[in-house]
Amino acid sequence: MDIREALYTTRAMRRVKPDPIPMDVQARIMDAAVRAPSGGNTQNWRFLLVDDPEVKAKLGPIYRQAMSVLWGSYYKDRLDAAHDAPELEESKSMLRVQKSAQWLADNFEMVPLYMFGFAQHDPSGSSVYPALWNAQLAARAEGVGTSLTQVLVFHNDEVLDILGVPKDEGWNMLGCVSLGYPTGKWGVATRQPAHDVSFRNQWGEDVGFRDDEPLWP
Amino acid sequence: MDIREALYTTRAMRRVKPDPIPMDVQARIMDAAVRAPSGGNTQNWRFLLVDDPEVKAKLGPIYRQAMSVLWGSYYKDRLDAAHDAPELEESKSMLRVQKSAQWLADNFEMVPLYMFGFAQHDPSGSSVYPALWNAQLAARAEGVGTSLTQVLVFHNDEVLDILGVPKDEGWNMLGCVSLGYPTGKWGVATRQPAHDVSFRNQWGEDVGFRDDEPLWP
Repeated sequence: MDIREALYTTRAMRRVKPDPIPMDVQARIMDAAVRAPSGGNTQNWRFLLVDDPEVKAKLGPIYRQAMSVLWGSYYKDRLDAAHDAPELEESKSMLRVQKSAQWLADNFEMVPLYMFGFAQHDPSGSSVYPALWNAQLAARAEGVGTSLTQVLVFHNDEVLDILGVPKDEGWNMLGCVSLGYPTGKWGVATRQPAHDVSFRNQWGEDVGFRDDEPLWP
Repeated sequence: MDIREALYTTRAMRRVKPDPIPMDVQARIMDAAVRAPSGGNTQNWRFLLVDDPEVKAKLGPIYRQAMSVLWGSYYKDRLDAAHDAPELEESKSMLRVQKSAQWLADNFEMVPLYMFGFAQHDPSGSSVYPALWNAQLAARAEGVGTSLTQVLVFHNDEVLDILGVPKDEGWNMLGCVSLGYPTGKWGVATRQPAHDVSFRNQWGEDVGFRDDEPLWP
């Protein structure tokens, strides 16, 4: 797969089938993950793959609870606004995200694989997110859908206990990626054009190019 | 370029030529950046490209000072250990990183382009690092070398002033990517094998596959 196809079509694919992901596919995904950069090339990261139904059964209820808190707090204003003006593009996007994220919450235990990312003594996560995103891009090339979710971070202590993470070594869980074969179709994600969110030399100054339509395909 | 070639050969390329990066190449890099995911697809990000020699001249001294502090603090123990046992692989890697990072400090103003990433009300950066990494992968496909540097974050206030970022809107600068045509060659980055840094279902449990050599090419 061409790099640009992967970059443009790797979007959150939360609705997946229960079919397991073969071990050689997992190995290729993880081998691509560790090619990511890390500060000082220290590779102070660990990854934990979860496919055991018993472990998923412990995480599912925590995930659902965290999502319901999120809808009622962080996303409350945006959801209220979306319900008030459902015809706006922004509202449609918000409601689409909610529906898809809630699907993952409702079907947490059915998703075949989760990948947790940890960093030691690095709360910024700058050394782990590129690795998780590499895994998501490599998964895309294998036809595997992924999504990055942060909500389990709100229950860090409980999650570390369930996963058996030693608490005296300074490991932080920074994100969790769901993986599975998608039920939907791949497509280019809709985004605000780059020229609308980019400046040149000074905040607010025109970036010098325009791209009203995606530059791929 | 194949996605796997991009994932395996996009490594920190700090030594670059002063040649400018054409505007259409910049547009393709930025258009790929904004395809990255963000929490709730809120796209609460901004990017600032810096190619003005006057702006670079203000940032350079700050960058050099931050790097010299970093060598004497965060990296001090590792550097001392590397100098004590320069024959170890780990020492070689540390000294290589230092040499390359110091090159960037010494030649900061000569690098043709910098890309700063900002997020609003999101100190975690989980919504900006994938976009910066997308830019780095898209740059790789264009033959442009990049490296992510965080050290300017230590001088956030000064940097925001130089770049004209409004301070009352909650924007955080989360990272800076240097861009330029590399003087060196592309190659697969050396990393600890994935099976050494990955577990399955419980911390410390075997992940179930081995990959002593990179799975590409």
